[in-house]
Amino acid sequence: MILDGLVSEVPVSGSRFTVEYRLAGNEADAYAMAQDICVEQTVECPIGILPDRIRQNILGRVESIEKAPDGAHRARIGFPVEVAGTELTQLLNVIFGNVSIKPGIRVEHVEFSETLLRNFRGPRFGRNGLREVVHAQGRALFSTALKPMGLKAAGLAELAGQFATGGIDVIKDDHGLANQPFADFRERVSRCADAVNAVNQKAGLHSIYAPNVTAPADEILERARYARQMGAGGLLIAPGLTGFDAMRCLADDDGLGLPILSHPAFQGTYVLSPDHGISHQVLFGLLPRLAGADATIYPNYGGRFSFTQDECRSIVRGTEMPAGKLRPIFPAPGGGMRMDRAPELAAFYGPDTIFLIGGGLMSAGPDLVENCRQFRRLIES
Amino acid sequence: MILDGLVSEVPVSGSRFTVEYRLAGNEADAYAMAQDICVEQTVECPIGILPDRIRQNILGRVESIEKAPDGAHRARIGFPVEVAGTELTQLLNVIFGNVSIKPGIRVEHVEFSETLLRNFRGPRFGRNGLREVVHAQGRALFSTALKPMGLKAAGLAELAGQFATGGIDVIKDDHGLANQPFADFRERVSRCADAVNAVNQKAGLHSIYAPNVTAPADEILERARYARQMGAGGLLIAPGLTGFDAMRCLADDDGLGLPILSHPAFQGTYVLSPDHGISHQVLFGLLPRLAGADATIYPNYGGRFSFTQDECRSIVRGTEMPAGKLRPIFPAPGGGMRMDRAPELAAFYGPDTIFLIGGGLMSAGPDLVENCRQFRRLIES
Repeated sequence: MILDGLVSEVPVSGSRFTVEYRLAGNEADAYAMAQDICVEQTVECPIGILPDRIRQNILGRVESIEKAPDGAHRARIGFPVEVAGTELTQLLNVIFGNVSIKPGIRVEHVEFSETLLRNFRGPRFGRNGLREVVHAQGRALFSTALKPMGLKAAGLAELAGQFATGGIDVIKDDHGLANQPFADFRERVSRCADAVNAVNQKAGLHSIYAPNVTAPADEILERARYARQMGAGGLLIAPGLTGFDAMRCLADDDGLGLPILSHPAFQGTYVLSPDHGISHQVLFGLLPRLAGADATIYPNYGGRFSFTQDECRSIVRGTEMPAGKLRPIFPAPGGGMRMDRAPELAAFYGPDTIFLIGGGLMSAGPDLVENCRQFRRLIES
Repeated sequence: MILDGLVSEVPVSGSRFTVEYRLAGNEADAYAMAQDICVEQTVECPIGILPDRIRQNILGRVESIEKAPDGAHRARIGFPVEVAGTELTQLLNVIFGNVSIKPGIRVEHVEFSETLLRNFRGPRFGRNGLREVVHAQGRALFSTALKPMGLKAAGLAELAGQFATGGIDVIKDDHGLANQPFADFRERVSRCADAVNAVNQKAGLHSIYAPNVTAPADEILERARYARQMGAGGLLIAPGLTGFDAMRCLADDDGLGLPILSHPAFQGTYVLSPDHGISHQVLFGLLPRLAGADATIYPNYGGRFSFTQDECRSIVRGTEMPAGKLRPIFPAPGGGMRMDRAPELAAFYGPDTIFLIGGGLMSAGPDLVENCRQFRRLIES
């Protein structure tokens, strides 16, 4: 065989991490698909041509296959830690790279092993750390978005100051604010940070402004550094647009040291079908957490998006379930938050939540500061 | 209203670019969804609270809605160029950011306007430029992947040399080769580039080695520069893992000046449902082209993936359809290419194609060099 002379040893530790896939189809289909995943996600070539050492040490291994209540099957597949290397991009590639293109395969869960997690630092703040930053113990947190696009920096800063006065903990840019001519990044960030920090100082508050640094790959870090220098207290990034690893870079940067909010833009397709893609728990819970987010924004049930209560619960689970050294992070449900739903949402989510309300604050009445206070009262009561 | 005092002027040129969405549901649904997209992708707040200037200048605008043969509707929506700013991340966000999370919406086509394209350079080489690099006029191009994972750098380099001797134009890393202990990036790249360049020099050939630079966000450019320095002639990157803009950075870097191959890992989910996601033509044709790829790798029909002939044709269309100044790029179908299918595939694709054959070359017979030559003969005859 062509490859036989080319392999001497294959250095692997024997440590594996496990991915659980939902496989559509009957039992025979499921067994064939599971075997296929073991090959496709590792060596990606006919196994007949593989030398023994590679077959034994590199291929994925089916650990179990079970029939699920919905008639599909669940297969747990173990991959050698070394196949994923030490990098998030390659880890994501092993979990779902090529098989993303094959129908009927959905990533339901990932169990990161301790060995694998040695390569990832995870959230710098997590829930406890972020609570310290905004001085919020034993209560829910509140967030809102600066919008709409089209306002100039002065207008956005005016809103930011009112939100801070009203007691919003995390005042973030709308994820559509990038570097447009209406309010370019630098002026916007400097003015909004000033506005929030002025209120903090005057009123003894601790709100943070988190600008959107979803940006060209070669400008993300530079914008984040500028933001920090101007007094921003957090950062917003959409990993569906920048790649998850860009978020990981921000979280790992000791010179920045700012809490990170993950935004779901461009990622929705992965969760819309039960038959393909990635589960809510993994995509909006575990992966942002692995990649260093301190809070994960996602569309709340019953708003203008389609997530169910169960799907939202599974995201919350992904933010807090045991995952080695990875700190629990905040779920930040948003989209369709309204004043009149506050009691119901408070009961559903409890205090370990960032309640993200956007347009609802602006349309609730003529006094924005009072609208903020009213929303907080409704959630906290 | 809260916002009324905050808006003075909204500087827009009036120039728009157009996105065509497939909308599931009946005519009334389609009209409602189209209106919703105009808001969700721009201001993202209740339109009742918007000052007139923002409503007129920032919102998307429905240009047409037509019933499609499949019973769904097609809506063309124009967005102000300024809303997308000058950045690929925000352009993708306007095209499909939040609405990716809403069921029943699929991006079918994007018409980049001339004004929008001023902000993007596109492919540096394109079809003609890549033909010049590998000295291949008037014929199809050939590519293969170095694999499997688990070989050491010397083994991969041995294969690379044989592929070059056999007349493969573009010898790329398998996209699963990252920076694993079996063959770390630097040693692998230096050895494989040497092997290919040695054959080129000895035999008067012009093959290129294209290593995989899908990597942590803060290492991509560094690895690409190292690769160039070591004599690599191209680069492979998977924008589903790194974000499209990381590819754009590589393409735009004048110091690199290397042809770019785009790999579809992690992107498959977007095309698997007719009801959600992004069309094949846009995801694997137009977007990589906009982001500077010179060739787009995708799973061929009839292999181990599920794409149809029509879907493959639509990708080819996306690589070459008029799109302002963007050069046509090569379609690079791969996955399940086999010797015995060569005549059929040659007839289907014609010569403006990179035929990517991986495992098929290794399993066709004991002499790898002869297998390469045989595949070329079969395609070219």
